[in-house]
Amino acid sequence: MNQNLRVPGPTPLPADVREAQAAPMIDHRGAEFAELLGSIRSDIARLTGSGTGAMEAAIVNTHSPGDRVLAVSIGSFGDRFAAIAEAFGASVERLDFEWGTPADPDRLSEALRAGGPYRSVLLTHNETSTGVANPIRELVAAVREAPGEPLALVDAISALGALPFEMDEWRVDLALSASQKAWMASPGIAIAAVGPRARAAEAEAAMPSFYWSFADARRWSEKGQTPWTPAVSVLFGLRRGVERLLAEGREATWARHRAVAAAAQRGVEALDLALLAAPGSRSPTVTAAWLPEGVDWASLNAALRKRGLAVAGGQGRLAGRILRLGHMGDVQLDDILDAITVLGEGLGGLRATPDPARAVDAARDAYRAEAGRGPAAAVPSGAPAARR
Amino acid sequence: MNQNLRVPGPTPLPADVREAQAAPMIDHRGAEFAELLGSIRSDIARLTGSGTGAMEAAIVNTHSPGDRVLAVSIGSFGDRFAAIAEAFGASVERLDFEWGTPADPDRLSEALRAGGPYRSVLLTHNETSTGVANPIRELVAAVREAPGEPLALVDAISALGALPFEMDEWRVDLALSASQKAWMASPGIAIAAVGPRARAAEAEAAMPSFYWSFADARRWSEKGQTPWTPAVSVLFGLRRGVERLLAEGREATWARHRAVAAAAQRGVEALDLALLAAPGSRSPTVTAAWLPEGVDWASLNAALRKRGLAVAGGQGRLAGRILRLGHMGDVQLDDILDAITVLGEGLGGLRATPDPARAVDAARDAYRAEAGRGPAAAVPSGAPAARR
Repeated sequence: MNQNLRVPGPTPLPADVREAQAAPMIDHRGAEFAELLGSIRSDIARLTGSGTGAMEAAIVNTHSPGDRVLAVSIGSFGDRFAAIAEAFGASVERLDFEWGTPADPDRLSEALRAGGPYRSVLLTHNETSTGVANPIRELVAAVREAPGEPLALVDAISALGALPFEMDEWRVDLALSASQKAWMASPGIAIAAVGPRARAAEAEAAMPSFYWSFADARRWSEKGQTPWTPAVSVLFGLRRGVERLLAEGREATWARHRAVAAAAQRGVEALDLALLAAPGSRSPTVTAAWLPEGVDWASLNAALRKRGLAVAGGQGRLAGRILRLGHMGDVQLDDILDAITVLGEGLGGLRATPDPARAVDAARDAYRAEAGRGPAAAVPSGAPAARR
Repeated sequence: MNQNLRVPGPTPLPADVREAQAAPMIDHRGAEFAELLGSIRSDIARLTGSGTGAMEAAIVNTHSPGDRVLAVSIGSFGDRFAAIAEAFGASVERLDFEWGTPADPDRLSEALRAGGPYRSVLLTHNETSTGVANPIRELVAAVREAPGEPLALVDAISALGALPFEMDEWRVDLALSASQKAWMASPGIAIAAVGPRARAAEAEAAMPSFYWSFADARRWSEKGQTPWTPAVSVLFGLRRGVERLLAEGREATWARHRAVAAAAQRGVEALDLALLAAPGSRSPTVTAAWLPEGVDWASLNAALRKRGLAVAGGQGRLAGRILRLGHMGDVQLDDILDAITVLGEGLGGLRATPDPARAVDAARDAYRAEAGRGPAAAVPSGAPAARR
């Protein structure tokens, strides 16, 4: 039985990505690798590691111990960004928002005025632990208007590719992502786009770094190499994932994620589950819902997996209290309708639950309404095809 | 044309490893992943990163800034280990040996007595940059007899699996490797085996660490997970590589590497190239040879690649002066004979060179002589089959 992998990363691999990553190994110091690296993009750092490695790289390349850092957190991954800065000796102050809500740009502006100057502000574009998308454009704008010219560092790991993002226009200084999210590749490659101000900050940064050095990555990149042996096979797949994104076109990709998310949100609600996020801040890539009273997560999860559906549970303080449905990367409406059906059946075995078929209808309607709004959300030429 | 990938890592992927790493993605927090992780081994840390990441992990998990460290270097990778310790604030003293020679245990003992006590000693089992295998057992013994009970940290990245190694019996405190070497998998997984004294040192270690934390890896490993999203597809392949090693049996694997190395060494010498290493210290996994006077590395390399052979050049001070032929992991005599033939042809185009056919005969003879010495070096059941 094929699994409907609906965790918020790693995401399902399209068949051509899987095929690409089965290619014979090559020399990472040879011409073929240089071509591979160049084909993905030459001006971003591709580091062999998890997304968390990219977060560590962002911190250590641009800070010195004692630097004042404002960490804006709306969930588990915001907390992680703060913890990394603390582990490396930054003086971290926190601006926390209730889990399930987005960060408020006005409150950020106030905090920056009242507490600044800061060396940097740590932001999360899409908080995977709560299914909330932050108003990242407005948050970055608040940072860039603050006294002391703090850097705006954005964890866009579960957002980049799936959500609109304008690095230059929004004046983001550093943005992070990871291969196993919207990029449709295997985990193992962390991605960092370093803007000019972050690059300038590297010269002064005194936190210890070796493996994660952006300067080394940049220097080796000039000859089409990486400083350390890279995850070559993951890059083979990532090249294919990038080709798929380019073929679909970014507006179409964003619209597809919006429409699929609308289906997920409406379908889950039609099963009588309450979402963590309010309508305006719901993530286009992951939907988080409260578990109904009396439903045990382990039992439900076992029932869903037995039916071929893999969703994620809660993290940290939300463990055992929520479920999370991922919809980023190679995802289409049918994947969501299948998930809603199985989730409804699984819940039905544990409690009185509305008819899954009606929830599926609601999900389909929501998809059509959203797909009708923007650029065509129906599968365009070159878009990911059905996986199963 | 299939390439004969004879760089000293990444190594060629057996067909079943390639097939394994093309498997559909799975949830890294699910039961299937726990089984995958357990099948590889439960008591070593598998970190998503390059081998250099494992070196950084070894340093930051067991040291505090200011710790006195003795770095024993016989080449480029020994220098790298020292540089990482320095980057994180250790007080590093160096015991260097000429590139192409091994480290001398007696001189190490003297240095430890004269300069000690040290918190740790950094050692290289197999120096990939010069094709020299260190007498690691004797070096570790010297460390363990030294005043101040220094830790013996061993970079065994290009050795583990291919060369005899007895972590417990030799009292190694920490040993490192990486998936793309003798393990026959893709790059992306760094491996660290942490002994009891190194583990005890973690409690006192004050160097900053987050991503590379052994304690976090250990805690998550207990529930069959990794702290951060791991390179799942690389682990799929690594599981297969480990199965192949177990099926061949370690003595047979070691003997195969010895015999194949004998063929490589004799074959290269029969082409009138001088090896960097003296007979007693030649590496079973990589052979390094001086380029003949007047032979340009770039031209030779281009000629070899055109003929389907990928070897490596020199690193650091040896760039442009040597070539390196890798023979670890999924390697058989035929791979070496092909490499000798192509290398002889390539050199023949640039200078007067002995007949490659005679060099191939010499290589085959050396293989047979070595294979006749120990446990069967002929392909045993379950051993890697011919790749092409």
